[in-house]
Amino acid sequence: MTADELKGLIRTVPDFPARGIQFRDITTLIGNGPGLRAAVGQLACIAREAGAEAIAGMEARGFIFGAAVAVELQLGFVPVRKPGKLPVETIGIEYALEYGSDRLEIDPASVGQGQRIVVVDDLIATGGTACAAAQLLRKAGAVVEDAAFVIDLPDLGGAAALRECGAAVHALVDFAGH
Amino acid sequence: MTADELKGLIRTVPDFPARGIQFRDITTLIGNGPGLRAAVGQLACIAREAGAEAIAGMEARGFIFGAAVAVELQLGFVPVRKPGKLPVETIGIEYALEYGSDRLEIDPASVGQGQRIVVVDDLIATGGTACAAAQLLRKAGAVVEDAAFVIDLPDLGGAAALRECGAAVHALVDFAGH
Repeated sequence: MTADELKGLIRTVPDFPARGIQFRDITTLIGNGPGLRAAVGQLACIAREAGAEAIAGMEARGFIFGAAVAVELQLGFVPVRKPGKLPVETIGIEYALEYGSDRLEIDPASVGQGQRIVVVDDLIATGGTACAAAQLLRKAGAVVEDAAFVIDLPDLGGAAALRECGAAVHALVDFAGH
Repeated sequence: MTADELKGLIRTVPDFPARGIQFRDITTLIGNGPGLRAAVGQLACIAREAGAEAIAGMEARGFIFGAAVAVELQLGFVPVRKPGKLPVETIGIEYALEYGSDRLEIDPASVGQGQRIVVVDDLIATGGTACAAAQLLRKAGAVVEDAAFVIDLPDLGGAAALRECGAAVHALVDFAGH
C-alpha cells in the first residue's frame, strides 16, 4: 500500500482537541483490515532495518501499532505506561506539555541491558512524548536510536527534536500544513 | 506453546491494586517475544473460529492483544476507548465498578451493521467491562457473541456474567483461587 493510499485512510477532524487544530485520526485506518496490516508491516520493516531487539509503545494508541509490530518481528513488547498502571516498582520520567506536564513509567525489568529498542507510536507532533520515552528506556539500560510513526506532522518539528534527543524519526506518511 | 508455558510467563504481584488481590500481570508475557506471539496466535485462532469480521479491544491493555489479533486475521480493529479520547461524535455506555462507575466510548462509524465482532482483552475478572463493551458494540449494530481473553479468573464469575450478557468466553489460561 502506498503512502498516499495509507493517507487516504486517515481521517482529518477539524478543531479537535482545540479550535484550529486539524486532528489526524487513525481510527479509520485501523478499522480497515488491509490498511492496518499494511501500516504494521511497514513499521515492522523499519524496525527490522533498525536492528530492533524489542519494541516499545506508548499508552494508549502506541499499544495498537507497537504490539502488532513486535508480534510481526517475534520480539517482546515494552509498554510505556501512564502513571500508576504498572503493578511493580517502576522508573518514570516527567516531561513538559504545552500546558503543565505528564509522566511516563516503565517496569525496568522489561528492558534488557544494552538491548536495542525501537519506539513505535501512531503520530509524532512536537516529539516531546517520544523523546521522554527514549530517555526513560535508556535510563533502564536500552539503546534507543530509532523511532517509527505512522504519521509525522513536519511543521511541528518533532523529527528535529527527536534527532536532538538522539533518535532518528521514520514515518509512513506526513501531513504538512498542520 | 502450552497453557502452562503461557501461564509461566505471567507474573503474579501480590496486594495490587489493593491488599489481598493477586494481580496477574501480562507485562512479563508480552515482554517475551515467543510468548506474545503465541498468545496472539491462539487468540486469533479463537476469533477466526468464531467467525470474526472485526476485532474490538478495550483501552489500554486490550489494544495490545486486540490490534495484533486483527493484523493476524487481516481484519479491522475497533478501539473501545475511555471517555473523551475519540475526536468524533461517539456513542457510550456507563457501567458499574465495585466503587463508582466508568464509561466506554466508540466511534459508531467504526462498526458495520450486522458485522460479527469478537472482543479481545487481556483478562476477564467479573466481566463488567467486557459486557459493557459488547452492549456498546451491539448498540452500534454489531453482532457480539464471543470474547477472547488471555487470562480468566474463574472465581470471579466473569464467564457466567458474560454468558448472561450474550457472549461466550474463551480464555488461554485461568488462575483459580484468585
